[in-house]
Amino acid sequence: MKIAVFAGDGIGPEVTREAVRVLQALGLPGLELVEGDVGGAAYRKHGHPLPQQTLDIAKASGGILFGAVGDFSLDGLERHLRPEQAILGLRKELGLFANLRPATVFQGLEDLTTLRPEVARDIDLLIVRELNGDVYFGEKGMRQTAEGLREGYDIMSYNEAEVRRIAHVGFRAAQGRSKKLCSVDKANVLETSQLWRDVVIEVAKEYPDVELSHMYVDNAAMQLVKNPGAFDVIVTGNLFGDILSDQASMCVGSIGLLASASLSEGSLGLYEPIHGSAPDIAGKGLANPMATILSAAMLLRHSFGLEAEARRIEHAVAKALADGIKGGDLGGSHGTVAIGDAVLERL
Amino acid sequence: MKIAVFAGDGIGPEVTREAVRVLQALGLPGLELVEGDVGGAAYRKHGHPLPQQTLDIAKASGGILFGAVGDFSLDGLERHLRPEQAILGLRKELGLFANLRPATVFQGLEDLTTLRPEVARDIDLLIVRELNGDVYFGEKGMRQTAEGLREGYDIMSYNEAEVRRIAHVGFRAAQGRSKKLCSVDKANVLETSQLWRDVVIEVAKEYPDVELSHMYVDNAAMQLVKNPGAFDVIVTGNLFGDILSDQASMCVGSIGLLASASLSEGSLGLYEPIHGSAPDIAGKGLANPMATILSAAMLLRHSFGLEAEARRIEHAVAKALADGIKGGDLGGSHGTVAIGDAVLERL
Ligand SMILES: CC(C)[C@H](C(=O)O)[C@@H](O)C(=O)O
Ligand SMILES: CC(C)[C@H](C(=O)O)[C@@H](O)C(=O)O
Repeated sequence: MKIAVFAGDGIGPEVTREAVRVLQALGLPGLELVEGDVGGAAYRKHGHPLPQQTLDIAKASGGILFGAVGDFSLDGLERHLRPEQAILGLRKELGLFANLRPATVFQGLEDLTTLRPEVARDIDLLIVRELNGDVYFGEKGMRQTAEGLREGYDIMSYNEAEVRRIAHVGFRAAQGRSKKLCSVDKANVLETSQLWRDVVIEVAKEYPDVELSHMYVDNAAMQLVKNPGAFDVIVTGNLFGDILSDQASMCVGSIGLLASASLSEGSLGLYEPIHGSAPDIAGKGLANPMATILSAAMLLRHSFGLEAEARRIEHAVAKALADGIKGGDLGGSHGTVAIGDAVLERL
Repeated sequence: MKIAVFAGDGIGPEVTREAVRVLQALGLPGLELVEGDVGGAAYRKHGHPLPQQTLDIAKASGGILFGAVGDFSLDGLERHLRPEQAILGLRKELGLFANLRPATVFQGLEDLTTLRPEVARDIDLLIVRELNGDVYFGEKGMRQTAEGLREGYDIMSYNEAEVRRIAHVGFRAAQGRSKKLCSVDKANVLETSQLWRDVVIEVAKEYPDVELSHMYVDNAAMQLVKNPGAFDVIVTGNLFGDILSDQASMCVGSIGLLASASLSEGSLGLYEPIHGSAPDIAGKGLANPMATILSAAMLLRHSFGLEAEARRIEHAVAKALADGIKGGDLGGSHGTVAIGDAVLERL
């Protein structure tokens, strides 16, 4: 049972450390944790944000626990050397095409969001975001126009196979929840979205039990403000998913608790907290490791089929929260290690 | 003084009618209102959502008052015949490149938003959205991949001249407000955004009094939830502006009051409420015409330099609101004509 641990930048190492302690405490037979360098940390050591040896560790693993990447002091580097390329590279190289981002308000934490409690209370949605295509991975570059002007360009595209496989993930997720799927696109402007919509409608025929709706992305951003509780499963492309899932996360108010999974067609997956590297508090022992600990639970569930162990972790976190163990991000005063200790005690 | 009036679809005609009554009541010397067909209404009459005669009326006018376009029953048409093409076509053909979308909470209406009143109260921002470029107007289409799969594609791009002119609009707007400009892009992934960011930084040198910051679009969507009051002027591209400006509008909670301007390099501009065609309530006399009336005020200000008249309209609307004249969208029970009457009385 091989798990790759890529801590990365900023608060990545400290939050990952606590999640690793939790994994180790479960007494999983044959557990092997293999660390690898990613992001700015990898660039500084190896001259590349995603060195070959890291990729090899990932490929040899059954699942990847990921901290965070991002380092503003490296913003001046060429794009392919920047920390963010580590996560983009892993997604692409490992075929991690399906990003599952649940956003659910934790009971007792309704007060943390800027939304009215009666609005926030109902939030329980899952965003299924495509991760391997769209304008992220199309041809891109700088060129000159006929008039000699600098121009930046990026090709957005999806083919039917790419849309079909993520649509299936969306429909299956909807089947396991309330059987409603909302596909978000911008088909009134984009041909990429038109193809997306056409294919989602085709796939829908295989899921007669799921009610499919379509929404333009600008309207989705509005409805996430107006009535986020009305959403259940949303399926969308890479770019719109990036924006909407971050918006939805913040609606929950406790971003330090939100985990995410990036899945391939096999069992290999990458699991990470949705918060970033938070350089402002890095190394101070202030970061809340709960989202990373919950990511480890997702890893056990999705990549190793260890549902019971995943639940044990989730219950321990929930108990710690109920007992008032809260990081600064949740209005509490518990530090990184103290929170890790508290979860371990309750495991 | 020639104003083009394009009422369009759904509630467009009824809300525009009230705004026209307000314009007529001002006793403006030489006022000439010329109606034109746009959107689904134009398609049904002329077979095209933006007929040549409509475009001619627009070009011969000093400013355009626009209602709304959109008609789901025409969704099956080829893209170039759909209602939305009217607004896209007008923006492009008339060089309306700068979309100004203010989002400000109206005093006394803080309770309408799903945000906590203490969060909503501070919202007073302006989104400056580029309207003539980006993935909206690049080459697009359906093609086959090498494996024979259907693929939709759209080219996203910006050249330095396009970025420069919208950046100037952003900086000048910031100068007239609190001298802070936030440029939103996705430079960690997109070359189009990298060029955008580079050029905005170049233009910033001409505005040493304005404090420039940069934010990734996903983070901007989060911050608009977390602390929308922290934003002042945001400048961004066509696609991100579409999403963020709708999100921001909904934060205000009273979308039936929000007007917008789309400006060219000259004085010609198009002015429209940001709400859509709302087919569900069309023709029932229920729509709130205030956003369209306020759009007419923006028209007088930006295209004709009639600041005093613009204020007269704005004050009349504010007074009507203060006197409890509210449409159903604001929790009131006043119909379209009753609201128009109320504003006229207070003019
Ligand atoms: C770091 C960045 C490239 C990445 C993305 O845009 O996908 C991040 O925002 C995310 O959502 O994981
Ligand atoms: C109708 C549509 C094409 C349009 C856009 O995407 O620009 C609308 O959403 C807007 O914001 O004015």
